[in-house]
Amino acid sequence: MAANDTPYVGLLLIADGLGDRPVPELGGRTPLEAADTPTLDRLAREGECGLLDPIAPGVRGGSDTGHLSLLGYDPYQVYPGRGPFEAMGIGLEVHPGDVAFRCNFATVDDAMAIVLDRRAGRSDFGTRALAEAVDGVQFEDVVCRFKESTVHRAALVLHGPGLGDRVTDPDPHSDGLPLVPAAAKDPADAASAKTARVLNAFLRLTFERWQHHPVNEERRARGIPPANLALPRGPGRSPHLGTFAQRWGFTAACIVEVGLLKGLGRYLGMEVIDVPGATAGLDTDTEAIGRAVVAAAARHRFVLCNVKGPDVAGHDGNPHGKVAILERIDRMAQQIVAALGRRLILCVTGDHTTACSFRDHTGEPCPILFWGETVRPDGVTQFGERPCAGGAVGRIRGTDVLRIMTSYMNAQEKFGA
Amino acid sequence: MAANDTPYVGLLLIADGLGDRPVPELGGRTPLEAADTPTLDRLAREGECGLLDPIAPGVRGGSDTGHLSLLGYDPYQVYPGRGPFEAMGIGLEVHPGDVAFRCNFATVDDAMAIVLDRRAGRSDFGTRALAEAVDGVQFEDVVCRFKESTVHRAALVLHGPGLGDRVTDPDPHSDGLPLVPAAAKDPADAASAKTARVLNAFLRLTFERWQHHPVNEERRARGIPPANLALPRGPGRSPHLGTFAQRWGFTAACIVEVGLLKGLGRYLGMEVIDVPGATAGLDTDTEAIGRAVVAAAARHRFVLCNVKGPDVAGHDGNPHGKVAILERIDRMAQQIVAALGRRLILCVTGDHTTACSFRDHTGEPCPILFWGETVRPDGVTQFGERPCAGGAVGRIRGTDVLRIMTSYMNAQEKFGA
Repeated sequence: MAANDTPYVGLLLIADGLGDRPVPELGGRTPLEAADTPTLDRLAREGECGLLDPIAPGVRGGSDTGHLSLLGYDPYQVYPGRGPFEAMGIGLEVHPGDVAFRCNFATVDDAMAIVLDRRAGRSDFGTRALAEAVDGVQFEDVVCRFKESTVHRAALVLHGPGLGDRVTDPDPHSDGLPLVPAAAKDPADAASAKTARVLNAFLRLTFERWQHHPVNEERRARGIPPANLALPRGPGRSPHLGTFAQRWGFTAACIVEVGLLKGLGRYLGMEVIDVPGATAGLDTDTEAIGRAVVAAAARHRFVLCNVKGPDVAGHDGNPHGKVAILERIDRMAQQIVAALGRRLILCVTGDHTTACSFRDHTGEPCPILFWGETVRPDGVTQFGERPCAGGAVGRIRGTDVLRIMTSYMNAQEKFGA
Repeated sequence: MAANDTPYVGLLLIADGLGDRPVPELGGRTPLEAADTPTLDRLAREGECGLLDPIAPGVRGGSDTGHLSLLGYDPYQVYPGRGPFEAMGIGLEVHPGDVAFRCNFATVDDAMAIVLDRRAGRSDFGTRALAEAVDGVQFEDVVCRFKESTVHRAALVLHGPGLGDRVTDPDPHSDGLPLVPAAAKDPADAASAKTARVLNAFLRLTFERWQHHPVNEERRARGIPPANLALPRGPGRSPHLGTFAQRWGFTAACIVEVGLLKGLGRYLGMEVIDVPGATAGLDTDTEAIGRAVVAAAARHRFVLCNVKGPDVAGHDGNPHGKVAILERIDRMAQQIVAALGRRLILCVTGDHTTACSFRDHTGEPCPILFWGETVRPDGVTQFGERPCAGGAVGRIRGTDVLRIMTSYMNAQEKFGA
């Protein structure tokens, strides 16, 4: 059977930040262990379970590195740093070969020499108008896309041929220090020298257009430091990953709630589907997300679905909120399984652990289950961190997941004869 | 939380050579399974367990490669051969970039042409005085450090800039064959050519200073072959590993009993603490070692502690001795846990298996446990090879251990966003 003749549709359902540590107020159980999840428990009973290290054992990963790994890309080889993903996350288009920077709106003195306040008073007053005043300018054959993010933050994408990312930071990383023009770290690196030239020209332009911009006159009048310079750091050159379809042999839909993952989906050529009511919070409309998954399964052989709520609850140190959103994901799983039936090859797991007690990501593995008519059931009867540890899947890594799913989908090319 | 804000202290407690095979005289149990270890069993019950391949499944490792791996360095990438570690082990200082050799005291003919006895009668008579007669000499800008070890063994460290380790062995590896001057394996490799020049000059010097040295006149009078040449083999260039603190973000203490591991600790910039009463034998003072660990935990976020006895008993084919020292390590664990309490994130494991029946290292995995308030307890109730195989940790590798510990310590930088 050729890979594209599979009768199955694969669904990788990520409960963002799924894993957790024992929670005293839940009697030492994790939120997933404490949650009432009859469908996930049934799927565990009918499927097979294990533990997933999204990157590698003990590694504290991010949502970006975790999803890269889960989609089959080794983040140690392809992760370009946060720049490109932050840019994707706020809705900037990023193409392979682009060099992206995290930026601050900053305050420099009138000579554009000394960085007075790297965060321009941490005020977002007028930043959208300032961004629009410079977005899209071109130097040489490079287009500069610039967009504001939250508070004093922004992102810059340099789009054009022959750019390198081995450039020094203009950001002095402390207030009161001189602005340092960007330079190629290696003078012989022509691609990075080009990036530095364009970057320095762009910085000069932001100063020229912002220094006396009405937004800044108003900021000064209100006692807010003017945002008269874009201060970039952390360059990253976007890797040539190819599309999901090129890698796996079939197209995919991407139903996710946050910009970072929508950007990743677009970057990999997935159909990114916006779901009204998907808020990325604990109040998100999981039923609407479930309907979107079922609809997408009619057009694609693969669907990536991420529900952000469990991670939000973890960062908030809110185990009861995490329990509640996991119970709603359980009902969503029931809805999807009922609709797709035996066509479905399902994997449910997390992209990392977000421990309520630590309020941030930690390096412990996530539970994982595979379910579908081609899956060998093991003896696990509950979907939870500790029950899954005894499952037949054992302890696997993120980069294993798509291979396992495509094998169950009978949709993987043979390696060898 | 920044990595250095963790309230936890990590202790990696290595029972050297911990793992074993079934021992008939222990009823088919391993020494650890047979030992009465109430504290380790409690820690297993309260923590999580698994099996550790210090390097990779089935690999027969050494104490040096095992500890490198456990501290987070892939020995396949960084292990330079035994030279540098043997030199460290007998107390020679080794710096990154140095080239070190294992050496024999050997007997050559009067023309320094034919190697008559590669081990100079396997006698250590006078070797210290001979070593002192050549230690510290300099050729070009390279200082030669030379020190005797056990019996006919010694080590040589070349310390200086621009040295390579791709040189041929002067050691003919059989008696009665000509001494072969060292040469760079690749004539274009100037660094190794420099090493060969210095090495040949040093060999000539050992012959000149030792041939008629009073030690050798006495050896001849006693019928012992003269030790009139240093015969080096197995060059290794010491890798630039950086310090433990650079790699993990916090300083560490190293409380170990043997020179090899003290050398490794110094090499990684750890505070190496000598414990009076720590003999590296079955009679070692584990209580004193435990006190030193507790004291070091007041100054460092991480402590590496190695107790050598289990390995010694394994090499001696002494399962009852191994049981006894493991029971004393159990009491030491109790002492440490009582003193450090909830501050402690503990990992107990071995650096390799030393099978009493084989009297040497073997490639089976070691049991491993993690314990601390951030750890998810699994269902394992006894610390032993077979009980641990069912634990939630599954089967991990040495290079995973520090990442897992630093995650539990909330002391690891995030990879991604």
